[in-house]
Amino acid sequence: MSDRIIGLDIGGSKCAVLVGTYQGEVLQRAQFPTESEQGFEHTWERLCEHVTGAWRTVRGEGNALAALSVSIGGPLDCERGIIYSPPNLPGWDAIPLKEKLQERFGVPAHVEHDGNAGALAEWRFGAGVGVQSLVFLTMGTGLGGGMILDGRLYRGARDMAGEVGHVRLAPDGPLAYGKRGSWEGLCAGPAFAALAEEMYPLRWGAGVDTREVVRLALTGDAQAVAVVERVAENMGRGLAMLVDLLNPEMIVIGSMAVRLGELLLEPTRRALRGEALPAAAEACQVVPAQLGERLGDVAALCAAIEAARD
Amino acid sequence: MSDRIIGLDIGGSKCAVLVGTYQGEVLQRAQFPTESEQGFEHTWERLCEHVTGAWRTVRGEGNALAALSVSIGGPLDCERGIIYSPPNLPGWDAIPLKEKLQERFGVPAHVEHDGNAGALAEWRFGAGVGVQSLVFLTMGTGLGGGMILDGRLYRGARDMAGEVGHVRLAPDGPLAYGKRGSWEGLCAGPAFAALAEEMYPLRWGAGVDTREVVRLALTGDAQAVAVVERVAENMGRGLAMLVDLLNPEMIVIGSMAVRLGELLLEPTRRALRGEALPAAAEACQVVPAQLGERLGDVAALCAAIEAARD
Repeated sequence: MSDRIIGLDIGGSKCAVLVGTYQGEVLQRAQFPTESEQGFEHTWERLCEHVTGAWRTVRGEGNALAALSVSIGGPLDCERGIIYSPPNLPGWDAIPLKEKLQERFGVPAHVEHDGNAGALAEWRFGAGVGVQSLVFLTMGTGLGGGMILDGRLYRGARDMAGEVGHVRLAPDGPLAYGKRGSWEGLCAGPAFAALAEEMYPLRWGAGVDTREVVRLALTGDAQAVAVVERVAENMGRGLAMLVDLLNPEMIVIGSMAVRLGELLLEPTRRALRGEALPAAAEACQVVPAQLGERLGDVAALCAAIEAARD
Repeated sequence: MSDRIIGLDIGGSKCAVLVGTYQGEVLQRAQFPTESEQGFEHTWERLCEHVTGAWRTVRGEGNALAALSVSIGGPLDCERGIIYSPPNLPGWDAIPLKEKLQERFGVPAHVEHDGNAGALAEWRFGAGVGVQSLVFLTMGTGLGGGMILDGRLYRGARDMAGEVGHVRLAPDGPLAYGKRGSWEGLCAGPAFAALAEEMYPLRWGAGVDTREVVRLALTGDAQAVAVVERVAENMGRGLAMLVDLLNPEMIVIGSMAVRLGELLLEPTRRALRGEALPAAAEACQVVPAQLGERLGDVAALCAAIEAARD
């Protein structure tokens, strides 16, 4: 009989419920649309159905469910597991998720901010194994972050550390996270489409999606590559700020960096070197998330895995 | 018989040698000009003379010298106590200061980055007593920093964390730390004079020093106050970056904030609130260094005090 974790990856557009181990392995996976516009109760009931199904699997294999583990967007209170109105989950207002899960399923539940969970996943099981200080950046639909500093997750005074997407990189830019010129506006997924439309209005002025820009860039299309390089310049300037402030050993970047690889990372590193203190830039590896497409799944297990290590 | 520390505060223009206690008290103080243009050996011999004199005092009072403690500008290797060519100390190239002090005086020596030492001083003995996460900013001739995160000094992978002055705040601005638009250029001491000259060329175009701008601002001179408010706007934008990234409980600001008080801090907090995530800004107190003019002296003792706590 082995200890199993059921992981819940709760996002604005989709949720995943996983069966996994304390070694970060994902054994089973189910996914469904969040349908966040239908509010908390709707998603909660579907999550519970899937947890029940996953638990049936765990029992059927003769194993024990040791804990539930959640990765979800902030703001939230990690220790108490209360969710405070994340922008992508309307109606999740002061939801005591940890308590509700523990009451419903009778096992310990652990809740972590998705940026922190991603940082833990890459640190324990991905690119950052053995590293003492690491910053993880999501670079997906939004730009979130998580930090491992001196071998420990750093959450900040109110579990709000790592809100990289809100930091200003320029006086102006696409609107994101409520602010023009924010790092999220200049570098998260939608920035590729926004910049393509701005840089090449004759070709893309009528609208283009980021997926198409990425696809074209990977085929070597010169204009799409130029868009990627423009994002990379901003990304490098943002990383320079992290490097000058935190002098981390490693910066791990998710989604877009996994898809674009060196096409994004090489000009990002160049911009970083041009802007940060040379010795600090040299000391910092900039790499794509090694867990790749599995990152969100492994991250969902990490709240429980980390709690077991404490 | 009590244990005493001899502290060395080594700066680009002056050095201080102090006798102090493990409770952060400064009992005796001597100061002399660094004369940094004369190179390392010159300053080293004068430091040694003063340390010898201070030790004579310690012995004369029947006490024991337990350790030497240094606060000095980076870059440096804190653990090994090697100084790597700080910009304000020409000729201090790969100087094994810890080893040299230990050989000369036969007691343990501890060396700390001055930004970190300032953070430790305010955390242990100043505004930050009892706080778990605190960022300290020097805001003197330069803009240095130090961070206490989750109740521990954070130094970064190569003792280079907290190089706030090098971070870009704007596309352009006064040149400092090798970069136009750097936080140091926009907010350290010389920025007050540079901005006064730029904002009021008819009055100050021929040159003014920061001391004069500060003096006038404190008397209520409207133009000098406007200069302070301009610096404060930039300061608040810089603090917003720290708040969004690190969600600290407290930011402690030295020199200029001690001299100008609320005249600087009130508009700084206003700019911070306008730029950072509201809940994170609300969670962060922004205060002047409580140790005031004693900060540098107490900081010089902190390398040894912290080593004793480990």
